Amino acid sequence: MDIFTEPLDPEDVRLFSGRSNPELAQGIADLLGIPLAETHFARFSNDNLYVQLGASVRSRKVYIVQSLVPPVSDHLVELLMMLDIAKGAAAREVHAVIPYFSYARSDKKDAPRISITARLVADLLATAGATHVMTMRLHSAQAHGFFSMPADPLTARGLFVDYFQQHQFDPADTVVVAPDVGSAKSAGRFAESLGLPVAAAYKTRLSDSQVHIGGLVGRQVRGFRRAIIHDDEIATGGTVVELCRLLLDNGVEDIYLVCTHGLFLGKAKERLGAIPQIREIVSTDTVPLPEERRLPNMVTLSSAPVFAGAIRHNYFRRSIGEFFAFWDEER
Amino acid sequence: MDIFTEPLDPEDVRLFSGRSNPELAQGIADLLGIPLAETHFARFSNDNLYVQLGASVRSRKVYIVQSLVPPVSDHLVELLMMLDIAKGAAAREVHAVIPYFSYARSDKKDAPRISITARLVADLLATAGATHVMTMRLHSAQAHGFFSMPADPLTARGLFVDYFQQHQFDPADTVVVAPDVGSAKSAGRFAESLGLPVAAAYKTRLSDSQVHIGGLVGRQVRGFRRAIIHDDEIATGGTVVELCRLLLDNGVEDIYLVCTHGLFLGKAKERLGAIPQIREIVSTDTVPLPEERRLPNMVTLSSAPVFAGAIRHNYFRRSIGEFFAFWDEER
Amino acid sequence: MDIFTEPLDPEDVRLFSGRSNPELAQGIADLLGIPLAETHFARFSNDNLYVQLGASVRSRKVYIVQSLVPPVSDHLVELLMMLDIAKGAAAREVHAVIPYFSYARSDKKDAPRISITARLVADLLATAGATHVMTMRLHSAQAHGFFSMPADPLTARGLFVDYFQQHQFDPADTVVVAPDVGSAKSAGRFAESLGLPVAAAYKTRLSDSQVHIGGLVGRQVRGFRRAIIHDDEIATGGTVVELCRLLLDNGVEDIYLVCTHGLFLGKAKERLGAIPQIREIVSTDTVPLPEERRLPNMVTLSSAPVFAGAIRHNYFRRSIGEFFAFWDEER
Amino acid sequence: MDIFTEPLDPEDVRLFSGRSNPELAQGIADLLGIPLAETHFARFSNDNLYVQLGASVRSRKVYIVQSLVPPVSDHLVELLMMLDIAKGAAAREVHAVIPYFSYARSDKKDAPRISITARLVADLLATAGATHVMTMRLHSAQAHGFFSMPADPLTARGLFVDYFQQHQFDPADTVVVAPDVGSAKSAGRFAESLGLPVAAAYKTRLSDSQVHIGGLVGRQVRGFRRAIIHDDEIATGGTVVELCRLLLDNGVEDIYLVCTHGLFLGKAKERLGAIPQIREIVSTDTVPLPEERRLPNMVTLSSAPVFAGAIRHNYFRRSIGEFFAFWDEER
Amino acid sequence: MDIFTEPLDPEDVRLFSGRSNPELAQGIADLLGIPLAETHFARFSNDNLYVQLGASVRSRKVYIVQSLVPPVSDHLVELLMMLDIAKGAAAREVHAVIPYFSYARSDKKDAPRISITARLVADLLATAGATHVMTMRLHSAQAHGFFSMPADPLTARGLFVDYFQQHQFDPADTVVVAPDVGSAKSAGRFAESLGLPVAAAYKTRLSDSQVHIGGLVGRQVRGFRRAIIHDDEIATGGTVVELCRLLLDNGVEDIYLVCTHGLFLGKAKERLGAIPQIREIVSTDTVPLPEERRLPNMVTLSSAPVFAGAIRHNYFRRSIGEFFAFWDEER
Amino acid sequence: MDIFTEPLDPEDVRLFSGRSNPELAQGIADLLGIPLAETHFARFSNDNLYVQLGASVRSRKVYIVQSLVPPVSDHLVELLMMLDIAKGAAAREVHAVIPYFSYARSDKKDAPRISITARLVADLLATAGATHVMTMRLHSAQAHGFFSMPADPLTARGLFVDYFQQHQFDPADTVVVAPDVGSAKSAGRFAESLGLPVAAAYKTRLSDSQVHIGGLVGRQVRGFRRAIIHDDEIATGGTVVELCRLLLDNGVEDIYLVCTHGLFLGKAKERLGAIPQIREIVSTDTVPLPEERRLPNMVTLSSAPVFAGAIRHNYFRRSIGEFFAFWDEER
Repeated sequence: MDIFTEPLDPEDVRLFSGRSNPELAQGIADLLGIPLAETHFARFSNDNLYVQLGASVRSRKVYIVQSLVPPVSDHLVELLMMLDIAKGAAAREVHAVIPYFSYARSDKKDAPRISITARLVADLLATAGATHVMTMRLHSAQAHGFFSMPADPLTARGLFVDYFQQHQFDPADTVVVAPDVGSAKSAGRFAESLGLPVAAAYKTRLSDSQVHIGGLVGRQVRGFRRAIIHDDEIATGGTVVELCRLLLDNGVEDIYLVCTHGLFLGKAKERLGAIPQIREIVSTDTVPLPEERRLPNMVTLSSAPVFAGAIRHNYFRRSIGEFFAFWDEER
Repeated sequence: MDIFTEPLDPEDVRLFSGRSNPELAQGIADLLGIPLAETHFARFSNDNLYVQLGASVRSRKVYIVQSLVPPVSDHLVELLMMLDIAKGAAAREVHAVIPYFSYARSDKKDAPRISITARLVADLLATAGATHVMTMRLHSAQAHGFFSMPADPLTARGLFVDYFQQHQFDPADTVVVAPDVGSAKSAGRFAESLGLPVAAAYKTRLSDSQVHIGGLVGRQVRGFRRAIIHDDEIATGGTVVELCRLLLDNGVEDIYLVCTHGLFLGKAKERLGAIPQIREIVSTDTVPLPEERRLPNMVTLSSAPVFAGAIRHNYFRRSIGEFFAFWDEER
Repeated sequence: MDIFTEPLDPEDVRLFSGRSNPELAQGIADLLGIPLAETHFARFSNDNLYVQLGASVRSRKVYIVQSLVPPVSDHLVELLMMLDIAKGAAAREVHAVIPYFSYARSDKKDAPRISITARLVADLLATAGATHVMTMRLHSAQAHGFFSMPADPLTARGLFVDYFQQHQFDPADTVVVAPDVGSAKSAGRFAESLGLPVAAAYKTRLSDSQVHIGGLVGRQVRGFRRAIIHDDEIATGGTVVELCRLLLDNGVEDIYLVCTHGLFLGKAKERLGAIPQIREIVSTDTVPLPEERRLPNMVTLSSAPVFAGAIRHNYFRRSIGEFFAFWDEER
Repeated sequence: MDIFTEPLDPEDVRLFSGRSNPELAQGIADLLGIPLAETHFARFSNDNLYVQLGASVRSRKVYIVQSLVPPVSDHLVELLMMLDIAKGAAAREVHAVIPYFSYARSDKKDAPRISITARLVADLLATAGATHVMTMRLHSAQAHGFFSMPADPLTARGLFVDYFQQHQFDPADTVVVAPDVGSAKSAGRFAESLGLPVAAAYKTRLSDSQVHIGGLVGRQVRGFRRAIIHDDEIATGGTVVELCRLLLDNGVEDIYLVCTHGLFLGKAKERLGAIPQIREIVSTDTVPLPEERRLPNMVTLSSAPVFAGAIRHNYFRRSIGEFFAFWDEER
Repeated sequence: MDIFTEPLDPEDVRLFSGRSNPELAQGIADLLGIPLAETHFARFSNDNLYVQLGASVRSRKVYIVQSLVPPVSDHLVELLMMLDIAKGAAAREVHAVIPYFSYARSDKKDAPRISITARLVADLLATAGATHVMTMRLHSAQAHGFFSMPADPLTARGLFVDYFQQHQFDPADTVVVAPDVGSAKSAGRFAESLGLPVAAAYKTRLSDSQVHIGGLVGRQVRGFRRAIIHDDEIATGGTVVELCRLLLDNGVEDIYLVCTHGLFLGKAKERLGAIPQIREIVSTDTVPLPEERRLPNMVTLSSAPVFAGAIRHNYFRRSIGEFFAFWDEER
Repeated sequence: MDIFTEPLDPEDVRLFSGRSNPELAQGIADLLGIPLAETHFARFSNDNLYVQLGASVRSRKVYIVQSLVPPVSDHLVELLMMLDIAKGAAAREVHAVIPYFSYARSDKKDAPRISITARLVADLLATAGATHVMTMRLHSAQAHGFFSMPADPLTARGLFVDYFQQHQFDPADTVVVAPDVGSAKSAGRFAESLGLPVAAAYKTRLSDSQVHIGGLVGRQVRGFRRAIIHDDEIATGGTVVELCRLLLDNGVEDIYLVCTHGLFLGKAKERLGAIPQIREIVSTDTVPLPEERRLPNMVTLSSAPVFAGAIRHNYFRRSIGEFFAFWDEER
């Protein structure tokens, strides 16, 4: 049996999609060889959400795909309702597939009386009925421990490494740069896969949209003429633009951006478009990107093969770890 | 000690408000004689919510006021985060005060594979940390049983009875009408308090915004020239308008509307304004109503005395039941 | 495969019965084509119950049938023990089949400091080990939300509609009457299936055995000469007898009674036998009725096909909703 | 402050009694110096129980006294409902005081597929809302570990030791006899307090009412002319009567019976009355004993001082262990 | 299918062993016909344990074998980590096989403010992820009730009975002796299987290593020339040695020791070796015994057939009770 | 009231210490002005632990101090037992004070099928009864989210900043160095408080005791003649020694080591003593350090003021956050 092509039993599995990223869900369905089951969505006149799953889930394995993209609260409540329906309708397993888990960034208390919302959401998912969670590139490795049910934080590194290996960059003139020490570990593994050196800035956040970049990063990149900035997500692009300035000041001439979750919200398009030295902006489709927010130098790699692969391995009881070994020794 | 005027210990109690209905929260604070503690709200660039409670809650009794008005999902997630913060910061008691609990209407399965969302939300509140819930006028008496923690569904009936007793309507020409059998019990108790007869329509919902009114209601109201339509909430007004037509066709000349939760969304203002026989539309402030959605014949009664009274009784360990006995024998 | 006739795997399924209604349990077993497994019951000299399941349940799907008929407390504790045994002996699934869930009537707080016992019992069932509950005709649709595990409240409407369609009553002279607004919804759906109009009384309970019937029901039934009173359960018959009087006073000549759960306790036989205009009293066998409590005009329809059908659909992973669609659009 | 006489704050504590043993509950109330709060009990016509607590419990310490005497199931369900009411009405602490916990005897699996009902009931108590349990003389010391909340299994040994010390029995001619090795530990401690030797029979249960007594007990008692049989409970007296025969056969002339829980059901009175060598039958009032089940040689010691003492120590935050040290070194 | 020889599906089952007793685990694996999967153990430089399971467990039945032998705390934490890994890696079932559950002895409170550690450990196992527990010869039958998940306390009695039947001892001159009333029940069943009489001492513990033996045991054994001392475990041998003295003083000439768990720690070898009348010391391999702690008269029976048999019966969904019926009527 | 000097009510609070770090516990007790309550520890002959709390905890606030230093498993199990005792003996609050939480380092999955043991231990603490946890300097900020109860990860930064401010180092020649990007955030805040620049190495772990230091750290420190290496814990010193080499190779002349948890196990003393350029090694007393593992240049700062301060703030219901604001803006 070839688990990469063997069709899943359509009577045993149900795949549903919330309204956040139906294209990705359809892509996953296609790779699994099963239909994307219908779901009916509505909003009552008092703004309450209404969801109805369109196919029987009784004693079946149910996968529900939902990215926590804006409007995040609506998508989260919608997901909780879908999980609750599956549980209440006696599904055997309820898998929440969350390509972009936005609240992963709220993973620590850096001020008094705030919420570690990533843990809260993990608990809400359990309450609503999720028996397993799949997601991609959590902001920190530790957030994995917030989940009380089995969780598989997948990685897009394999996609990025495959893509950049075609460029055949020289380690003598190219450096991978993490915009913050928090993402330096992940950037380091990416660099290692490409045989490149790695540098890390030390970001101090002045406000949600303003940051200061320190950490002697200038000393680290001096002498390199090409930099690949590697981050987990780009929202409005503030950090990245600030870092680009600093790199250019220190002699870098060509910049590549790589991020798993490309939101490109607010002034991101304008800001990134204003820096001609940015050659490429490479991200995945965990966040759907409408045409009007795209720049010509943007490259989108589909994450569907990663999710479909993990679901297949899960379904055929193979280790997710073995499967992803070639792109992430951390799982 | 007069528990109606005795000040609460401001060192022992913290009252916070979400962003849904700060005026009502302030009204409650004023009646309790304690300040409304500050809360900081923000939204990250990726649309995640950010909340910070502005006063220490350690070992204190915390009350958090939040109405589930539009945008409902944002207000729900905001409430869950506030509860989680209070729990995580070691509050002694965490009371969720939810004047309008929108999801109370999703209280049964009338189609396959939908969610009894009212139960789901009750469970989410428990997960997030609520140790007690106060709300007003749930859609059904049974929804009380969805809560795993002590819950007090309060009533606005006393406010309405006080108000209508001034009108001194005659039971010979005035009938209270419930738009549906589901709300007939509550309408009946209201009618009883005023010494008026009660009639009930039988509503069949064709869609979220379209209904059919049956139940031989015409036979019931014939001969009465004044009707008080009594419902728990009015959203877009579809049901009420349909019922008004039917009452007018059966000889009713003057109509009064009474509802606890007056949302008046969508075309409500336009529809209700188009029926000149509607003399008054009486509701409470559980849902804040901006000036532009108001009609001249709308009367808003403040629910703050009810919530403040219940909090006081809770604080001074008096029975909530005794307190509300005069306006609701059901608690 | 015809799921209506396909035999269940007797090695994979175990069906046990408590002592409340063994005839119904045997009927279900016969329709499923599996044996009713033996159970040993005893009572210790100190009045403790003793139960021993007579067949291995390890890793199997276990169905336990128990109606909460008098003595209710003994039958409830017996059921909890049977569930506990199945859980402790490592059953894979533990289904509680409760044809008559007596405590469904205790579904709200209509006085201070009483118990919403239906929710309490739902929680006790979960604690004892039930992973799924099947029951019939809960007193309210909302009580479904009391269960934390998947629950299927089934309906006997199909049985009743089939039976009454043979009578071919004329909508011009026949009306369905709900004795209370609480049961009006269900009566309405029954009426709709037969193409008949529906009326609803408004019952005020003076004591457990005394009620007052109001709600302008006289106005509603005037002109009809036949009434079908539709209720969920008849215990001592107080409400129904009171309603019959009122209908007869308003010109009704023939009365039919329909109820899912026919307990006919206390003076029920005597009271109902004293009204000659009652043509038929139609109920199901969720409550076993000994010969000495029967009247000649009583008709008992077996609910075994409904429970067996639901168990079959559950076993073969079909939607319970689809199955019952033709008799209840509410599931 | 003398914690034995200091009155409890009647505003802070509520003491309720179920219907099983109101005399004992009143005795406890008297010793605590607080009133026994009213409770309303009823039974619906469908045999459902109805309970209403007659005083506000909000934020108070609530003690509920209920013995699991016949009818055990009714008393258990009644207790669960009372706990649920206290929890739902926001009591601060809910103490279940269960003088006779009948199911303590179902503490192990001595046959396949039976229930360790003592653990099940402990879990049901937790589900219903008990935050603390007090009971007396569990059948085994291990059953203490079944409770997930703090539990205090109290002892009546002090009462019995005080009583028998007046008899001044001589260790040369008096032996304490345990009817079974399971109760030998407890009999041993009783014997030690009186300075008497101890013997233990080895009971094999042939059925619920028939036993075989072995264990070389004849060899142990030979030469003693007086025996005190010490057991935790006497139901129908089968074991004790069998043991008496054996003792008399081995030369014993005078027999005293001591048991904490004296049920004396079935033929107990007749059987025990038929053995003239039984001088005294000493028990406590954890089980109420109606006049018609009493024999002239029965002595009943009140357990109220033990329960009231434990409640006082609990209330005044003293160690229960210290308090009972003089009569039970095991707590 | 012969469930005693049928191979288990190696793709569906994973058997792992902690570091406490790998020989026994290998023996079980051999009897099941499946490999013992690899596990990597290490200790970080800060003394933290590190464990990695060496084969995928996703959706599989996982059995983890670990005896709580010294160092007990390390073996307990190691077991908890292995269970946690299996749960987190999405095993379908997680079976903890604990041949020697040392904390079973901490099963009651015989002093104030101590822990019923057996219950605590049972709860820790549940938290860590065990869905089923198998163990052997708990110190008390009641400890079974401490487990919230299905638990099977197996017995070695069959092994011992088979062994001693070869000796053909005469009931006229041989008595089975329990060192304490707590183990008298089990000794009694063993004696019954061999047709021998049973006696029980009454042990008072003066300290962890010093005991007083009373209970008129001398009277019971007088006249017998051979005694089989039957206990659940022998640690340092203090109790047994004390009892041997007493037996020899009362005329016994030959002594056999039987215990399930033979730890033989501290001075056990020296003490037991000093009593020449001890003919044989028979135990099982639940505790691994290094050569240097053995005496020439020690006999070790393997418990692997019992565990493998139970796992087989569990796997093939047979009653464990039926299987063990021939050696223990108590399961 | 001055909360820094006000004595705690000794009747309301109980402070106990495990066996890991009694000196620190005594220091905390002294600062709180309450006695350290007695605890009895023993080990049964089968290696089971035995713990008895020596003072009544009923309805009191209980603080239990235990560092997870070697032997870690024993200290963990001992702590779990102490928590369980406090819970079972009806303590009102159970605070686990864990100065060194060793398993905080096991906070992510960097290999398949390993345990996120920090989350597991957090869950075990909850199961055992902890209602609140205090600890110091978790390895990552995210580990805070592993706790389901309120948790306060305190910081020793204030102690270190106070100490180093006396040295008045010049930012022109002194740089703070984090041995790994994982600890760079914390090092950064320390550097900021002293007005110094910060550099971060990128550590790749080859084995538990061998690491590779990369991350272009040489480029970052060149030109500085003094470096302060800042880490959370030093066990065997492998990483630090490797980093010292690299710093010395790049021109650094004077090295200071700062770490919260100074274990100095294995060859640490020898390795660190072999580098004469290490001027000072500054740590706290969360890990007790015996004289034989100390070097002359080691400085130990007591953490008792931090724990006592936090306990005081907790007791007097002040924000822990406000209290620590001056040394850690992150709480």
